Formats: sequence, C-alpha cells, structure tokens
Amino acid sequence: MPLPHSVALPPIEPGLLPAAAGAPLDVMLGLFVLFIGAKVGEEVARRFGQPAVVGELLGGFLVGPGVLALVVPGETAFVLAEIGVVILLFSVGLEVRLDDLLAVGRPAVLTAVVAMILPITAGVAISLIGGEALTTAVFVGLALAATSIGITSRVLADMGVLDRTFARVVLGAAVIDDVLALILIGLVSGVAAGDVSGSTVLVAVAAVGLVGLGFAAARRARGLRREVFTWPLFADTPLVPAFILMFAVALVSAAIGLAAIIGAFVAGLIVAETEARDELEHEIRPLGQIFTPFFFAVTGAQVDLRALLDPGIAVLAIVLAVAGVATKAAGGLVGARELGRWGSAAVGFGMVPRGEVGIVVANLGLAAGLLSAGLFSAVLVAVVLTTVVAPYLLAWAIPRAAAEADLRAPAAEVAPS
Amino acid sequence: MPLPHSVALPPIEPGLLPAAAGAPLDVMLGLFVLFIGAKVGEEVARRFGQPAVVGELLGGFLVGPGVLALVVPGETAFVLAEIGVVILLFSVGLEVRLDDLLAVGRPAVLTAVVAMILPITAGVAISLIGGEALTTAVFVGLALAATSIGITSRVLADMGVLDRTFARVVLGAAVIDDVLALILIGLVSGVAAGDVSGSTVLVAVAAVGLVGLGFAAARRARGLRREVFTWPLFADTPLVPAFILMFAVALVSAAIGLAAIIGAFVAGLIVAETEARDELEHEIRPLGQIFTPFFFAVTGAQVDLRALLDPGIAVLAIVLAVAGVATKAAGGLVGARELGRWGSAAVGFGMVPRGEVGIVVANLGLAAGLLSAGLFSAVLVAVVLTTVVAPYLLAWAIPRAAAEADLRAPAAEVAPS
Repeated sequence: MPLPHSVALPPIEPGLLPAAAGAPLDVMLGLFVLFIGAKVGEEVARRFGQPAVVGELLGGFLVGPGVLALVVPGETAFVLAEIGVVILLFSVGLEVRLDDLLAVGRPAVLTAVVAMILPITAGVAISLIGGEALTTAVFVGLALAATSIGITSRVLADMGVLDRTFARVVLGAAVIDDVLALILIGLVSGVAAGDVSGSTVLVAVAAVGLVGLGFAAARRARGLRREVFTWPLFADTPLVPAFILMFAVALVSAAIGLAAIIGAFVAGLIVAETEARDELEHEIRPLGQIFTPFFFAVTGAQVDLRALLDPGIAVLAIVLAVAGVATKAAGGLVGARELGRWGSAAVGFGMVPRGEVGIVVANLGLAAGLLSAGLFSAVLVAVVLTTVVAPYLLAWAIPRAAAEADLRAPAAEVAPS
Repeated sequence: MPLPHSVALPPIEPGLLPAAAGAPLDVMLGLFVLFIGAKVGEEVARRFGQPAVVGELLGGFLVGPGVLALVVPGETAFVLAEIGVVILLFSVGLEVRLDDLLAVGRPAVLTAVVAMILPITAGVAISLIGGEALTTAVFVGLALAATSIGITSRVLADMGVLDRTFARVVLGAAVIDDVLALILIGLVSGVAAGDVSGSTVLVAVAAVGLVGLGFAAARRARGLRREVFTWPLFADTPLVPAFILMFAVALVSAAIGLAAIIGAFVAGLIVAETEARDELEHEIRPLGQIFTPFFFAVTGAQVDLRALLDPGIAVLAIVLAVAGVATKAAGGLVGARELGRWGSAAVGFGMVPRGEVGIVVANLGLAAGLLSAGLFSAVLVAVVLTTVVAPYLLAWAIPRAAAEADLRAPAAEVAPS
C-alpha cells in the first residue's frame, strides 16, 4: 500500500523494500496510457477500415512525446515492448512448420539477397549523387537494407494468412536478411574503423550457427510428447517451460547480435513440431494480447517528425523512403518470382518495414562521424515512413496474392487446418 | 538487432529510437534470471513437499543481492512484480461472488478489527517495555498490524480452497484491514508531524468510497452479457477490456493510497458477476503464470538478513515476529470464532503476512526519526519472518479447516462447481 498523498514519502532503503512498494505509480500510469493509446488507436483505425497495427502505432505516437506528451517511454516500456514483439514472433513461429519453411528456401534466399543488394545500391547511389563520400553512402544503403519483421508478422497474423506460401517466404527471407545484415554491419563498421577484426567472422559463424542449430532442434523435436514440457511440477501446462525456452533463445540471439525476435521465431519453430503446439497456440494468445500492443505503441511513441520541418531533409527522406519501398518490392518481385505477380509483390512489401535495424545502423554512422545530422534525420524519417506504409501495401497485395494462389494451385495453398 | 559486440555502441538519440533497440539486454537477462530462480525454487520446494510460494520466494532470495547477487531488481522487475500481484488478486476476485463475500461480513469485520488491535497493542507493549517513546511504539505496532494478502491469496489458490468460507473471510478482512491501516497510518503520521490535516479524512472517505463503489458496481454487473466486453473491434475476447478495467481500478486504488491489489480484487469481483467470468478465468491464467512469479521472486530478492548478525536485533525481530503471528492468529480465532477452531485459525494465519505495508510504515518511522536503525531493521526482519512462516501455517490449518467445515455443514461448504 503506497502512502496517502498527504504524507511526504521518506527516502527508502533500496535493499530492503519488497516489490509492491517499489513499483512507481507514474511508471504504471505511463504503461496504462500506452496500452490505452494503442487500443483506442486500433479501435479508431478499424472503424475506418484501416490496418489495426497502424492504429496502434498512431495511438502510441499521439500519447507519446511527439504530440500529447502524456507519456515518455522508459526502460520498463521498452522491455515490455521487446517482450511483446518476442511473443509475437514466437507465436508466428508456432504457426509455421519447418518443412514448409525449408520448402520455400529458394525464393526466400533469393528474395533476401536481392532485397538486400537493391536497397544498398539505391542508398549508395542517392548518397553519391548528393555528394556524400563512399563510406557514408554505404551506411545509408545499409540502413535502407535491413528488414524488421515485427510489423509484417502482425499484419500476416491479423489477416490470417500465415499458412500461405508468400507468408513463409517473407519469414524465411527476414531471418536470412537479419543474418546478412548482421554480417554486413560488422564488416562495414570494421572498415569504417579501419579494423576488420576476426570477431566479425565469429559473429557471422555464431549467427548462422544459431539459426542452423534451431532448425536442427526443430527437426529433432518433431512429434515430441507434451510431457517433454510438463514434467516439472511447476508446469501444469506447457506454457511456462515453452516461455522459458522462448526467452532463452531470444536472449542468446540478442547476445550474438541478431535480433531477439529471430531467436523467438526459431523457438516457435521448435515448439511447433511438438505435440504441445495446439495447446501453446491457445495459451500464448492472452500474453500476446497484453504484451504486444506495447511494442507498437512504444514504436509509435518514439517517432519524432520535427525533422520534416526542414524542406531539404523532408525531400531527401521521401526520396530515400520511395527508394526503400521500391527496391524491397522489386526484391520480392524478382526473388520470389515463382509465386506469381501478387504473391511476389506481397513478399516484397513484407520486406519493406525497416524498424530498429535501420536506426541502429544510422546511429552507428552518426557516431562514427560519417553521417551528418541532416542525413541522419532523413534516414530515420525514411525508416519511419517505410514502417507506416508497409501495412497498407500488404493490405492491398495480400488478398490479391491469396486469390492468385488459389487460382494457381487451390489444393496446395489451402491450409490443413 | 543490437550491434555485434565487436562494435562500440554509439550514444543513441533517446527521442528517435524504436522500441526493440531500447530494451537493455542486461535488464532482460535479469528478468530471465528472476523467473528461472522462482521456477527452480518452486520445483525444488514442491519436490520436497513444501509450499510452491516458499520456493519462489527462496529462489528469488538466492539469485538476489542477498546471496548469489546474479540480479538486482530494478524498476522493470518491480513493475512486473506489481502487475503480477495485481493479476493474482484479480484472479482471486474472479473466483469470489459478492454475495458470498457479504455473507461473511460479520466475521470479516470482526477479524479485521481484532487482528488490527491486538498486534498494535503487542507492538506498543514490546516497544514500551524496550524503553521506546510512545510515538515510536505506535509505529512499531502499526507495522505489525498491516496485512498483505498476496501470499495468502496464492496459497489459497494453490490449495484450491478459494470457494471455502474461511477463504472469503480472509479476503474480506484483508480489504477492511487495508482500509483501516490506510486511515491509521494517515492519522499517526499526522500526529507524528504535529498536523492531522483534513486530507486524512479525505483519504479515508476515498478509500471507503472506492470499495463501496466497487461493491455497488459488482451488484449492477450481475448477469451482464459477454458483449459488454467484446463490443470494441479490438476485443475478440473479453480479456483486453477486462485487463483495462483491472489496471484502471488498481491505479485508482494506488492513487488513493490503498494497495493496487485491493483495486484489482474489487475489479475481479465486478467481472465475476458477468457472463464473461468463466472465459476470463481461463484467459487470465497464462498471464498469471508469467507475471505472478516475478512478484514472489522480487519479494524474495529484496530480503536482506544481515541485520540478524546483530544478536540484539535478532532477538527483538524474533520477539516481534512471534508476537505478530500470535496476535494475528488470535485475531482470527476471536473474530472468526463462528467458523470453528480450524476455520478461524486458518483465517488468523491468512492475516499473518505483513509484506509491503509494514515496511512502508517502518520507513515512515525511520524518516521521521522515530525509529532507530536497529529497531527499523528488527521490524523489517519480523515482517519477512511473518511472510515466510505464513504458508506453512496455512498449509497446516487449511486441510483441517476444510475437514472441519465439511463435518459441520457439508452441503453449504461444497463449491457449486
């Protein structure tokens, strides 16, 4: 029980205070505002026929520092957001079978590679035309190349198309893309610092190794019985052990330098092969409903559009964003050509959101003195624009891709469920 | 995607960074350690036939700063802990019907009053005998009088006896106890500061008003249809709207100065009357499984037993703890006499854990210069001891209370489910 407000709160000995007295009311209130912002935003968006995820992003943006300033996300909001997107990707992994993912290996690899080369090329070209140095241009290109799969996963799940071929191609390509980006960032940072160390190689090996090990584990997990999860006395259901597995693989993934969500997706793939799959899909849903909105609300709350007030930056940002969208779309159209016109477009659009990876690259360039403040802002705004436009592109392409696929091979495309 | 470790992380612009890059890996790792500590602790405890909650407390204690120092709970851990205990009390409220609670109004009120007067008297007497001033003695008494219902709720739920009369008496008494403690703390603090302001009265009115309004809302909620929760487009199930209600009432409760868990319990009572009850009981369970262990782990991690190295403090702490347990037990035996010997004992033991309220009072006394550092430590250790001993007392009394009740009036005591 906190104190009545009439009583001045004394300084509290940190080592001696139990939990409930240690949760600051203002932090709890901030979390509540973020959650409400996301849900009201979703409600309004859906009433107007817009994608739910755009509403959550917009709700977070509105309550955040950029507009109403009702809340400034702090450590706890960031952690809930991260757990939220980890749970989202774990749920997505739960709905994907390893064999289905490996079956689309060729278009996934092709898409990942083409949809990485094209944006880098475009970013480099735009920067060089703008008179920037080559190293600077490469940073801009890299920031345009990295894919963040959170937004796309949410749209795929919301539209109920995770069992479609194009969805699996996007997921596979996103995993490969993240590994490629990790390696390239290490290389470019090393070159920028004049020192390509052996640790870059180690990181690359670790990243490929984690994904490879995860796939091997998923294969071995096939048909494992529910009791594999419920042998501990604390586990009435498979949820807690599966949550621990998800959390552990996500942490290892993050520690290596991959996104935590890649690890979470791989953990989901593993569990999806076991007999606990259906029960877990059911049990993880309430956790996603509570945690995941924080990811989108916090992402929205972090958006700062003041840079757009400078016309030069605004134009550059829009050029970069258009190039970013066009090159990712082209990557899908080329790399996943075999899925047909709309299927490959959906794949390309699925690769459009850049999210945090692009921003980490931009920060790296800023810190290395390679990006000017203006260029940095333009890259950030371009990243935000790709993130907001992607749900609309997906909402446009996905029904057409589904119809196209049903026409091409109805039996193979319809989900077993 | 965080950076590979070979790359020095640049300073990042706070306002521009999306969520995933903002969740510090060390915080995530600390949360993971706390969760694992709680679950391993629970597993070991249960293998040895001990109460699960003792294992979670012990696990948190072991990984915490007091022993292995693998993790020092920070803001995020405190918030997850608070949400965890809020969800726990919401779940408990979901399993209680308002009428059943009001039916035990007399023993609940009696128990709350007697189990508040006796420990205050004992604390005052021990302190006066120890040569302390009267104001100091009153603070010690108050710290011994406050009940925290989190531990008891967990034990009642674990043992599946929430539908028993003695469980409802404990819950009702704990709510009344929290309101009484809030009022007394305001009064005593005012007296200590030489100023009993009108805001103490306001706080008292607000506290009684919140509980009264909650009860009235629960009555009006009777039989409300599921659609009351699922009309928003974002609500596929009642979970998210119910979560928002729970969070809101908990925040109001905390803002008034009551425990957040009192608000959560009242919110649970309200929802329990609607047709969404069964579905919510099912959906809230996964959230409890993930959030609630943080409460017990963080509580355990906050325990610091170094004060016990001073024999004077150790003896005083044990005297206070014994007095605290005995007076609460006596309060139950007297106040809930009509439930029979074991039923009333179970009620008394359920009031034993002091938790955060006792510690807030002790901190208040320390800050006001009324408690010496030694007396402060002794009170804290006594609070911890009451918390650890309570699950054992409950585990001892509850089966006997259940058997006794079945003998007395089998039909009335057996749950409708």
